[in-house]
Amino acid sequence: MSVDIREQGLEKPVAVAEYLFRRLHEVGIRSVHGVPGDFNLVALDYIFKAGLRWVGSVNELNAAYAADGYARTKGISALVTTFGVGELSAINGVAGAFSEHVPVVHIVGCPSTVSQRNGMLLHHTLGNGDFNVFANMSSQISCDVAKLNKPAEIAGQIDHALRECWIHSRPVYVMLPTDMAEKKIEGARLDAPIDLTEPPNEGEREDYVVDVVLKYLHAAKSPVILVDACAVRHRVLGEVHDLLEKTQLPVFVTPMGKGAINESHANYGGVYAGTGSQPDVAERVESADLVLSIGALKSDFNTAGFSYRTSQLKTIDFHSDHCTVRYSEYPGVAMRGVLRKVVERVDLARLSRAPSPDVRNEVARNRDESDTVTQAWFWPRVGEYLRERDILVTETGTANFGIWETKFPPGVTGVTQILWGSIGWSVGAAQGAALAAQDAAAGGAEDRRTVLFVGDGSFQLTAQEVSTMIRHRLKITIFLIYNEGYTIERFIHGMEAEYNDISRWQYTEVPTVFGASDAQVRKFVVKTKGELEKLLTDKEFNDAGRLQFVELWMPKEDAPRALKITAEVAARNNAKMSD
Amino acid sequence: MSVDIREQGLEKPVAVAEYLFRRLHEVGIRSVHGVPGDFNLVALDYIFKAGLRWVGSVNELNAAYAADGYARTKGISALVTTFGVGELSAINGVAGAFSEHVPVVHIVGCPSTVSQRNGMLLHHTLGNGDFNVFANMSSQISCDVAKLNKPAEIAGQIDHALRECWIHSRPVYVMLPTDMAEKKIEGARLDAPIDLTEPPNEGEREDYVVDVVLKYLHAAKSPVILVDACAVRHRVLGEVHDLLEKTQLPVFVTPMGKGAINESHANYGGVYAGTGSQPDVAERVESADLVLSIGALKSDFNTAGFSYRTSQLKTIDFHSDHCTVRYSEYPGVAMRGVLRKVVERVDLARLSRAPSPDVRNEVARNRDESDTVTQAWFWPRVGEYLRERDILVTETGTANFGIWETKFPPGVTGVTQILWGSIGWSVGAAQGAALAAQDAAAGGAEDRRTVLFVGDGSFQLTAQEVSTMIRHRLKITIFLIYNEGYTIERFIHGMEAEYNDISRWQYTEVPTVFGASDAQVRKFVVKTKGELEKLLTDKEFNDAGRLQFVELWMPKEDAPRALKITAEVAARNNAKMSD
Ligand SMILES: Cc1ncc(C[n+]2csc(CCOP(=O)(O)OP(=O)(O)O)c2C)c(N)n1
Ligand SMILES: Cc1ncc(C[n+]2csc(CCOP(=O)(O)OP(=O)(O)O)c2C)c(N)n1
Ligand SMILES: [Mg+2]
Ligand SMILES: [Mg+2]
Repeated sequence: MSVDIREQGLEKPVAVAEYLFRRLHEVGIRSVHGVPGDFNLVALDYIFKAGLRWVGSVNELNAAYAADGYARTKGISALVTTFGVGELSAINGVAGAFSEHVPVVHIVGCPSTVSQRNGMLLHHTLGNGDFNVFANMSSQISCDVAKLNKPAEIAGQIDHALRECWIHSRPVYVMLPTDMAEKKIEGARLDAPIDLTEPPNEGEREDYVVDVVLKYLHAAKSPVILVDACAVRHRVLGEVHDLLEKTQLPVFVTPMGKGAINESHANYGGVYAGTGSQPDVAERVESADLVLSIGALKSDFNTAGFSYRTSQLKTIDFHSDHCTVRYSEYPGVAMRGVLRKVVERVDLARLSRAPSPDVRNEVARNRDESDTVTQAWFWPRVGEYLRERDILVTETGTANFGIWETKFPPGVTGVTQILWGSIGWSVGAAQGAALAAQDAAAGGAEDRRTVLFVGDGSFQLTAQEVSTMIRHRLKITIFLIYNEGYTIERFIHGMEAEYNDISRWQYTEVPTVFGASDAQVRKFVVKTKGELEKLLTDKEFNDAGRLQFVELWMPKEDAPRALKITAEVAARNNAKMSD
Repeated sequence: MSVDIREQGLEKPVAVAEYLFRRLHEVGIRSVHGVPGDFNLVALDYIFKAGLRWVGSVNELNAAYAADGYARTKGISALVTTFGVGELSAINGVAGAFSEHVPVVHIVGCPSTVSQRNGMLLHHTLGNGDFNVFANMSSQISCDVAKLNKPAEIAGQIDHALRECWIHSRPVYVMLPTDMAEKKIEGARLDAPIDLTEPPNEGEREDYVVDVVLKYLHAAKSPVILVDACAVRHRVLGEVHDLLEKTQLPVFVTPMGKGAINESHANYGGVYAGTGSQPDVAERVESADLVLSIGALKSDFNTAGFSYRTSQLKTIDFHSDHCTVRYSEYPGVAMRGVLRKVVERVDLARLSRAPSPDVRNEVARNRDESDTVTQAWFWPRVGEYLRERDILVTETGTANFGIWETKFPPGVTGVTQILWGSIGWSVGAAQGAALAAQDAAAGGAEDRRTVLFVGDGSFQLTAQEVSTMIRHRLKITIFLIYNEGYTIERFIHGMEAEYNDISRWQYTEVPTVFGASDAQVRKFVVKTKGELEKLLTDKEFNDAGRLQFVELWMPKEDAPRALKITAEVAARNNAKMSD
């Protein structure tokens, strides 16, 4: 390497790649997902030097899904791909992270600034000399784009990108040219950590909103709290829990908020999703005269087809960048500060508390005479199998709707992708989530199980990510719902259609083919309730000491209650004509 | 379905989806690749009605790769995905088709125009009410974007998109809202086929260029023809062959042009790629006083790192949208018309012909004493195994460079992706190519074998597309180059680096796990030259009556000659600093 004259003025010179990866380590990342390519190889050397682990997924989409799962579990994650081919392979996974508010740092190794300036006809380009086209695409799904082209600006760009990523809880795109990876920049800057604190609300404004909230809260006769996706993703669960403990108000979650609340809490009332809710839940939420709605994300699938029967006149919405009380909007007032003050200032004497429904895993009530593992029976039964602090990943399909009927033990992290709903995601996400737990355990945290429920159709899209699970000895328990194809789609359109059928794989052999020794994996085929009962009560199975793969037979034309309702609405929406 | 008042005026009402798929059939498509999603399900019903086959790949990226391979073999192809999640999963594959001039019609089933207008918070959106963001991304890699929102315009939009796709030999993006799929439009228009003829050159201009070309050609002492990618992709091989037959000039191909020329032709001189060429080839091309360069695409990997030693003063470039004679440019003058007139008007009496090198498969010369299957020995040996009219798919990695040393029998179609170079592509592309051959055979064409050479690293990205091969009984012969990882990357950077290692799979069991019965697949592990000789001379193996999977052991640190040269240049380019 040539010595740059400008480097001589640096107090503690560090390579750009080292700077970047040390910053990732600082914000809590311990493993970096991605796939090598010649435009990122030199940078990859610095991953190890920064004390990070390189994961090396089998492809970039899987890596992006895994980064998503890692961030959902550990707070933030990083993904490294190569220019063009790699980054575009990953883009759907990153778009999902954008859609669902997951902070992923996407680092793209790209051609040198010299090659770019000369418009060279390089591999992985469109052949038109345009080196910005992919960055332009990614800018649509990133809250910051940092093109690291000028050494003097790079440290600032990196710090800014990581801060944006964290604060907005959304992906950022970092473009690292090959000739910049080893350029020296000022490392002294690393002595001070990046400021990740959210800007506080303007005080008077915040107080005003708090007063309005308290006015309605004190006046309400049967208020409830409803916790949704953005409460999790924008990290206000601490505030929510304090609110809950202090007020002892009934609390509900939406499907995307599931896992946010201790479901063993006496005040926990269940999953609210309009007509997709259990009747007593719908009744309780919809009869409330005030809903404190925290981090709402009212998408079609999160609301069983926009079927809320709550009124905005009875709703206070708390969001990461604004609050809304009935129809009064308070832009720029972030929920965190407001919630904190509401907790401090609420007058318990003036608070009315009406009881919330009792939530149980309704196993017996949903048990029929047959041997068949039905959707209705299965999901409550899962609730009895789960343990405290499990990480539970569910895929779009019957699983994502079935899980509404599962009451979680305390501390369970629910990992779902209900808004973006890209199938195959869960296999990568489970890998990333389990890896995050492994990293956390290495840092002293308690061990956690990772359990995945994935449909046979979805599994086929990203199956080879099981190979990465094996490579990193992740002890995930995989339930593959074997129901001969795209059941969720059948309920929307084409119950018997050929396009909803898939190939019959030998699913349980998948881990072996992808490199698992017999000692590394346990495989099961479960066709009846009895077999399932036996498995779910087996000690070794529950201990999950290695990768476990369960092919679970369920009927082709069976779906959870909430899915049937939602599918009908989706089909109706799709067909609706304007004229 | 409600009856639209405007439909009553239609002479032959047909549903939009039917119109679209009948047009696809008309231009020669017989199978449609893709993955279902609720926004395209209703449209899918019309695939069958139009006499098309639904392929149903395991994921969208594989489907896009397969569509690419189908188009390279059959001329044009179609891909159906669902909004957001599906289309973005496919986008890297479509970008490759754009980069490499492959005509793929990408049809995206999207939310209804009503939902779009209302900005509904639907699944598969970014949650921001923007329904154009994905179309905007795709517009960067499409030569036409058709949003089918208004029934009265749809037929025209479809016809225009298909024409653009064909003429420019690049992808088009068709956005089909759910509420439009069954809208009735005028079917009478289908009675007249879409005009796919290229606009002719302006006559006087074309004559002028022809005269200039002939002037130099007649004056040259040792002219050669060099055929590159765009000659294939823009379908001027008929003109090229006529030129060759008439003039009997020496002819060479570039790596991306491989397969364009009958390599048994007496005048065929080999593969030219600068310093990546065999010495006698480089010597002959670089000493020519005139190079008729047809459809050049001088990317780094296609030129062994920009190592041409030819002079623009001795070059005439023929392109799909312009010609260049030395430094004189003729924009808007397409090569087809010019080539045709050159063939007609060339004066053979005034033409000088110097001989071209003899091309042989240099098996003996590259055989060493060891048992090891070396890269140097293997690729010429492949030339003896290939048969006339084979379809040969090679992946980025050692395969793509090794194949330069393989002399093809007549009629072989070479399918490579040297410019875009997205690994995993070849597995999908082989599926698509074989399917295209199967479709062609169903239409009366001769049977063809499809042979795939893919690295172990690349195979892992898209392995599950083998499942689609099995589902459609495609009798592909797969050579998996087992060399323990990313050998091509090792030669660029990190020979021993962990990130260039991959997991050890049980590769030969992959087809079985993905659903092949023992009768459907033959599996082989080949570790020595002797074992390979035996296999390549086995009659049943050569007959390729079913799927065949060969795990072929080659040394980890062995690479074809041309790869070593190119990798060195790539590493140098990546490191080059501007100051
Ligand atoms: C990447 C992507 N492609 C296509 C779809 C459309 N889609 C949604 S669910 C589904 C079928 C899922 O089938 P499976 O995983 O077997 O679930 P189940 O049978 O349990 O419903 C499909 C194809 C999607 N959501 N994402
Ligand atoms: C989608 C994508 N990701 C990453 C790369 C970078 N890349 C190019 S070649 C290669 C390794 C290929 O390894 P393998 O298929 O085993 O080939 P071989 O060992 O024969 O060289 C990689 C990772 C790429 N070209 N495309
Ligand atoms: Mg299924
Ligand atoms: Mg390899």
